Amino acid sequence: MRAGNLGVPTRSEWLNGVMAPGSRIGIDPFLFSSDAAEELKEAISQKNHELVYLYDINLVDEIWKESRPKPPNKHVRVHDMKYAGVDVSSKLSSLRSELTNAGSSAIVISMLDEIAWLLNLRGSDIPHSPVMYAYLIVEIDGAKLFIDEAKINSDVMHYLKNAGIELRPYESILSEIESLAEKGACLWLDTSSVSAAIVNTYKCACDKYFGTAGTVNKKNTEALNGTDGTSCGPSYVYRSSPISLAKAVKNEAELEGMRNSHLRDAAALAQFWTWLEEEISNGVILTEVDVADKLLEFRSKQNGFVDTSFDTISASGANGAIIHYKPEPNSCSIVDAEKLFLLDSGAQFIDGTTDITRTVHFGEPSSWQKECFTRVLQGHIALDQAIFPENYPGFVLDAFARSSLWKIGLDYRHGTGHGVGAALNVHEGPQSISFRFGNMTPLLKGMVVSNEPGYYEDHAFGIRIENLLYVKEVSTPNRFGGLDYLGFEKLTYVPIQTKLIDLSIVSATEIDWLNDYHKQVWEKVSPLLDGPAQQWLWNNTRPLIKH
Amino acid sequence: MRAGNLGVPTRSEWLNGVMAPGSRIGIDPFLFSSDAAEELKEAISQKNHELVYLYDINLVDEIWKESRPKPPNKHVRVHDMKYAGVDVSSKLSSLRSELTNAGSSAIVISMLDEIAWLLNLRGSDIPHSPVMYAYLIVEIDGAKLFIDEAKINSDVMHYLKNAGIELRPYESILSEIESLAEKGACLWLDTSSVSAAIVNTYKCACDKYFGTAGTVNKKNTEALNGTDGTSCGPSYVYRSSPISLAKAVKNEAELEGMRNSHLRDAAALAQFWTWLEEEISNGVILTEVDVADKLLEFRSKQNGFVDTSFDTISASGANGAIIHYKPEPNSCSIVDAEKLFLLDSGAQFIDGTTDITRTVHFGEPSSWQKECFTRVLQGHIALDQAIFPENYPGFVLDAFARSSLWKIGLDYRHGTGHGVGAALNVHEGPQSISFRFGNMTPLLKGMVVSNEPGYYEDHAFGIRIENLLYVKEVSTPNRFGGLDYLGFEKLTYVPIQTKLIDLSIVSATEIDWLNDYHKQVWEKVSPLLDGPAQQWLWNNTRPLIKH
Repeated sequence: MRAGNLGVPTRSEWLNGVMAPGSRIGIDPFLFSSDAAEELKEAISQKNHELVYLYDINLVDEIWKESRPKPPNKHVRVHDMKYAGVDVSSKLSSLRSELTNAGSSAIVISMLDEIAWLLNLRGSDIPHSPVMYAYLIVEIDGAKLFIDEAKINSDVMHYLKNAGIELRPYESILSEIESLAEKGACLWLDTSSVSAAIVNTYKCACDKYFGTAGTVNKKNTEALNGTDGTSCGPSYVYRSSPISLAKAVKNEAELEGMRNSHLRDAAALAQFWTWLEEEISNGVILTEVDVADKLLEFRSKQNGFVDTSFDTISASGANGAIIHYKPEPNSCSIVDAEKLFLLDSGAQFIDGTTDITRTVHFGEPSSWQKECFTRVLQGHIALDQAIFPENYPGFVLDAFARSSLWKIGLDYRHGTGHGVGAALNVHEGPQSISFRFGNMTPLLKGMVVSNEPGYYEDHAFGIRIENLLYVKEVSTPNRFGGLDYLGFEKLTYVPIQTKLIDLSIVSATEIDWLNDYHKQVWEKVSPLLDGPAQQWLWNNTRPLIKH
Repeated sequence: MRAGNLGVPTRSEWLNGVMAPGSRIGIDPFLFSSDAAEELKEAISQKNHELVYLYDINLVDEIWKESRPKPPNKHVRVHDMKYAGVDVSSKLSSLRSELTNAGSSAIVISMLDEIAWLLNLRGSDIPHSPVMYAYLIVEIDGAKLFIDEAKINSDVMHYLKNAGIELRPYESILSEIESLAEKGACLWLDTSSVSAAIVNTYKCACDKYFGTAGTVNKKNTEALNGTDGTSCGPSYVYRSSPISLAKAVKNEAELEGMRNSHLRDAAALAQFWTWLEEEISNGVILTEVDVADKLLEFRSKQNGFVDTSFDTISASGANGAIIHYKPEPNSCSIVDAEKLFLLDSGAQFIDGTTDITRTVHFGEPSSWQKECFTRVLQGHIALDQAIFPENYPGFVLDAFARSSLWKIGLDYRHGTGHGVGAALNVHEGPQSISFRFGNMTPLLKGMVVSNEPGYYEDHAFGIRIENLLYVKEVSTPNRFGGLDYLGFEKLTYVPIQTKLIDLSIVSATEIDWLNDYHKQVWEKVSPLLDGPAQQWLWNNTRPLIKH
């Protein structure tokens, strides 16, 4: 049973099915966002179940006993200003303006990438994501970071002190939340990300402050606090985190780091593909895991390499049709010249985050595989080349990436683009390019998105072509309506296998796009290579001529 | 002051601005939908104004006195089954199933095109729209048409009687609404279309039935009426009209009528363009109104012609940039060989409704005009050729029509497509193809939509290219996800002026589309023509060759 898969009941459906009506169901309120807990509570109330928050005991933790691994405590590092572009005090100052405008006096932040971005810190508590376990409370006149102090060396301690950020034990978050209520704060809560434990604790503390349960209401836009700073008691506003959008819009230093790290990543990939083609032509037997390991070896030699940015999807043949496939050493397939090979991988560098998918064939692809690949590529090109007025949400562009597949009745069941952090999480919001039309976040200049249409044939093969792009202003010859017109600039510079292109269905414009892209790949990446890898890059960036 | 224009206050803004707070503002509740009245009531409550429904007096009517024209009383006609495709009893039977499923026992219909469609009747009370003033109440065991009996001749009387439809005076609608409450009906109300007078009358009658005000609540999905037919008192459900979607999905007979009437319309247009080109080359001075009148003359000679389907937009030069331009005899411009000429027109035929826009130049267009025209045409072609999975709302396709304009920073400020009735209103819902993303109505097989991208340069020129299309299932070689894939079939077959095409920016595929279209225009329309008009059609459907 894997949640979200067809035929798998949701958590609440399962609970409503197996529990006797009127049961009491306990959850660890630190592991549910407030919204998710409310949704669960509502859903199980159909069977008169009661949701109980267990603050002090988690039954799964009990099973671990002494064998439970210690929490990670690796050192936190400062993300250099040359990569971050904006210092902490400027970021805090902007955030405090937003707090004031919303009539709130404090915010609690629990999204780890938001804390890392806001404080220009990076950690390594979670594989592939350079973040550290922490909470952050920012008030108008101070900020407190709740973190295991063992992770903070003296340099970082000094850095935080200079930025006016106090340290608190990670476990003391709830008592601080209670203190905020006691001093009459108006707390900004993003209930989609903040845990049920925090939201519930604050509400209870508010009720306690007023002496009776249920009298504190959610504040609207107007501040209840007097303009002279006096408070008429604690309150809260429910709003989306203001940091999510600020983090998504990259500044020039972040984009520069992204561009540079992508070129080093491209150099590692060129070395990798050179090696892999050679091994396969020599008849060496390589598994999907062998191949992923070797890719990591090439990447890890690049300057500033930190980690992979997600588990490498090294998928041969039919495994390519499993969208989040992860090969395992004892069960994975062989990468050979008989099948399509889909490789979706990425890296965390000190200055940027990469995410790239290429699909290749080391032998003779079938004409059907070529047609599918070409239609996926046409979608990729159509999205890459899109120009659109400001303030359009990403879903408007999604159909461009599917159009060529739709023409022959094909499609893919995932979104076309997700946001990507700058030396941060490889998946981030709030923007997306998807057939899910609910996300009205406009695409803004400086946002990074993936462009990854695909096609998947169950038990046969998978195709995906993914570059990262950033949104830029395009200097169109006209500006109807006085608007800015936006488009994309590529971050990813790795050849696309031309062997897989069905020349009978591509247009001259599409071939021009590919040739221009390969020209840029050669110009940007060849200086980082020599020997066989440089030769491979040359061979794989030659212009395609349509006969 | 024209409502909806930039800088023009809304009705409620104006009222809140000029009236002393706490005023009583009267409206004629027959002229406001219930939703519109509620919205106004809410908006003016900010200034403590009270909204008062004036059932018995309308101050505008008072001004007319004896000079007020009599209400129209032209005869209603039966819309022949060969055009309607489905008879009244089948339509009523489907509607009654929907009523039963919704737990309601009656529906009041006030949208005139819905009444005309449901009863297979047509009228001529409103210019351009073949409908008659009426209300219709359909109950499980009967139906009543509220209409001026003078409009009903003996044939129609007989027809209605056979269909089980009773006649009632138009003015008796409110007393019947009261009777429905008295007999404990559950009334289906589409408050977006039904008048405030009807909704308010029913609610008051319900309150009266229960003896106290404010105790009747809106029913939810479950019927309160017992399954044995007994009633526990009147109630109501708020739901969108079920007739709107049924009417939008055309049956084969309706599509056949649309196809046939479009060919006759195309023949009239070919005769018209032949005449106009000749006149202009002879130096005859023609105004926009002269030209529109002559077009009407050609159209009215076609079999089954009833009326124009809207006021003809005959717009020369800068007038083309005024989207809903209507030329007036004493102020309109000359149509000549110096300017672009935009002609948006349509007809009501006995078997179908047309709506077509062509933009032409009788002299030498500038290269800028050609570029704009070509980009509009590229958008038109992209939408025409779109193939997409079932259940997609129209807005997903809107960007296809804008994409080529966006590339150079151009756009247009109207939607790309509206629904069109079959021998009914030229604008109908519920579907649309627009940048307004709220309309989630999926495009369904059999719906008719316009495809009308444009570009407008204030004080200079306007370009629009409009065909009508219907949604059809496309037999794609694959059906990913087991879905139907949909596309469009053209209804409109009139040449597009190739002189205005900038060959340097069109693709081979686009030229193929145009040549194929013109080939079909010739094949379908030439048999309806002879002499100079047939020669004109031949000249204007020759294939374009890209050098």
